[in-house]
Amino acid sequence: MTPRSRLNFPCAPDDPALPTPCLLLDEARMAGNIARFNRHLARQGLAARPHLKTCKSMAAAQRILRTPAGPATVSTLAEAEYFAANGVTDICYAVGMTPDKLERVLALRRGGTDLSVILDDPVTAGLLDAAAKRLFNDGDSPLPVLLELDCDGHRSGLDPQGEELLAVAAAVQASPFLGLRGVLTHAGAAYACTDTAQIAALARQEGEAAIAAAERLRGAGHDCAVLSVGSTPTALLGEYPQGVTEVRAGVYPFMDLTMCGLGVCTPDAVALSVLTTVIGHRRQDGALVVDAGWMALAQDRGLEASFPRWGYGLPCTLDGTPLPGLRVSVCNQEHGIISPCTGEDAPGPALHERFPAGSRLRILPNHACATAAQHDAYHVLRQGQITACWERIRGW
Amino acid sequence: MTPRSRLNFPCAPDDPALPTPCLLLDEARMAGNIARFNRHLARQGLAARPHLKTCKSMAAAQRILRTPAGPATVSTLAEAEYFAANGVTDICYAVGMTPDKLERVLALRRGGTDLSVILDDPVTAGLLDAAAKRLFNDGDSPLPVLLELDCDGHRSGLDPQGEELLAVAAAVQASPFLGLRGVLTHAGAAYACTDTAQIAALARQEGEAAIAAAERLRGAGHDCAVLSVGSTPTALLGEYPQGVTEVRAGVYPFMDLTMCGLGVCTPDAVALSVLTTVIGHRRQDGALVVDAGWMALAQDRGLEASFPRWGYGLPCTLDGTPLPGLRVSVCNQEHGIISPCTGEDAPGPALHERFPAGSRLRILPNHACATAAQHDAYHVLRQGQITACWERIRGW
Repeated sequence: MTPRSRLNFPCAPDDPALPTPCLLLDEARMAGNIARFNRHLARQGLAARPHLKTCKSMAAAQRILRTPAGPATVSTLAEAEYFAANGVTDICYAVGMTPDKLERVLALRRGGTDLSVILDDPVTAGLLDAAAKRLFNDGDSPLPVLLELDCDGHRSGLDPQGEELLAVAAAVQASPFLGLRGVLTHAGAAYACTDTAQIAALARQEGEAAIAAAERLRGAGHDCAVLSVGSTPTALLGEYPQGVTEVRAGVYPFMDLTMCGLGVCTPDAVALSVLTTVIGHRRQDGALVVDAGWMALAQDRGLEASFPRWGYGLPCTLDGTPLPGLRVSVCNQEHGIISPCTGEDAPGPALHERFPAGSRLRILPNHACATAAQHDAYHVLRQGQITACWERIRGW
Repeated sequence: MTPRSRLNFPCAPDDPALPTPCLLLDEARMAGNIARFNRHLARQGLAARPHLKTCKSMAAAQRILRTPAGPATVSTLAEAEYFAANGVTDICYAVGMTPDKLERVLALRRGGTDLSVILDDPVTAGLLDAAAKRLFNDGDSPLPVLLELDCDGHRSGLDPQGEELLAVAAAVQASPFLGLRGVLTHAGAAYACTDTAQIAALARQEGEAAIAAAERLRGAGHDCAVLSVGSTPTALLGEYPQGVTEVRAGVYPFMDLTMCGLGVCTPDAVALSVLTTVIGHRRQDGALVVDAGWMALAQDRGLEASFPRWGYGLPCTLDGTPLPGLRVSVCNQEHGIISPCTGEDAPGPALHERFPAGSRLRILPNHACATAAQHDAYHVLRQGQITACWERIRGW
């Protein structure tokens, strides 16, 4: 839904013309998070290729990207098309490429976008070459390919030390339609780390996997200009070895409770929250019923193994101060239940007196990507007032 | 995203012009599910007030609703506004009403929609009366109110036997802006039942709660025309006692794995699925990587306590036949991992040979409401071909 047309900016977050639930974005916190990230990379002489899958918004991307043209990373071709239409011309599509997606990729490249893709399978390289035979025009330049590496057994990618790495490189090299640009890896295992030293070690592991693969590729006579690594936890808690050329990360401008749990930030850095209205009370167990269910918060349980008491989000007052001893314990489609955490101090006077129906609260999310994806716009919060509405896109 | 403009109907689900992931809706299965539900209610002399929070689509609602004008149930005012603009005039907004939402409710009523709301708190009734004093015009008729009852300790609502029931009724009666229309309850606890007899008992409990509350209200001199109950499991597995006037349910046209697990239906009744493309392989553990992650499937874990091996969905071939021994074990944003279930028979020849990159599969969802909410359209499947695209709305 587009924002209600009768909303006049600036407005307070408890303005009844602002329907709840809705997504708030604290502009100062976001700016602080972006500055911290860029400073940390600059100290290492590294450049960011921010992952725009988290924000999916050009207004946010303008503040995140190094230049209006990029570089940027995306997770869907819909994102690539949206950002390209808004002037971003250097984009890496960092989800495994398949032949059925080639036509849209070529359309973007013909429109002037330097769109690169990733591959981790020799069979797929062959299928892509076959599809390219049908779809390439005379004027088309070779499609830049990054080889996806598995640095931590997390998801997908080639073993940097395995035979298949060179087989895929050879298949790419053999195709007149494909060109080898480099290697790419992502330490998704960082989300399962239990201390920050592990995460820092994983950053080194990410970098070393890229460097090892690049050396083997170069040794076999291939070019390998790009060594792309990154995740928000490894990028912020670690340092990369010499040789890495760019860092991808998506959550860092917004942060979330998962980043707090991993030790990447504290709750006062979380820029994203869901504004919600109290719609009822359960006096029998001291709980509030709010109009933010999973449709507004998403169903991500964050680091539930380490922090089960966090539930589906951290309730805060309207000014963003966490309400100690409370959590979102249950989410239905349009109902959230905010309850006292077991074993914590009681949260003060009876909740139903403090927050009658119609009162508003904010909820910090477990996972910025998932919660933001439930909304079509950010309501931008500046010094306690909502001053703008930024669109988000979705789909594929 | 709107469907790709270059898609021509009918098309096959493996047409590369159809981007994946996308949502498929099997029209014949949906029609069968709707007919079953309506027959079951007709045998009891009951009428449906379908909950449109699951479909959020007028094209689907036309097939679900008894008449083009309703009756219908919604979970957001955005749904109410969308369905009202499409000719549905009898709508119950079945999420606790708050004063800040009154202006939009009144706008809908002034436009000719008989929109009713629900309440479960005497304080909220007073706040609503105060807001109505400011917002009502001379021509406005009283806002119809249903008292929300708690029949199973699941979420919210008044105790049918408690003092507060009569206090809220008195507060509604005392306001010239509010009118008591009846009572409403929902047996959300049905989703935690472990056998169908428990669910049938819960249907009786739902009905008896409504009847008990209605008798007490009538005894205190109030009107109570509507006794509204329902959930898909209780409606289909139980029968309601005499006195209930309408049944609300939302999932039944689509069905999902949760309904299969509760014994409400079998997988061949599930009308909704996510079409996905294989984008990679993990030969080390015999897994497929597909382009349906949680962005396409949602993060609902369904009945994980009873059926942990179901993961995030049930993989099927393109014609909808389940692939035995496989499940979606992991979901990242745009990656799903389809792995063999531990302890089950191996799923036949190596998956990477059977399903090379670019192959397509379908995934039956855990929870129809959550998975459908991740998409902006249904691709309607008729005899194996996609014949239409139906829009969905979202937001609040």
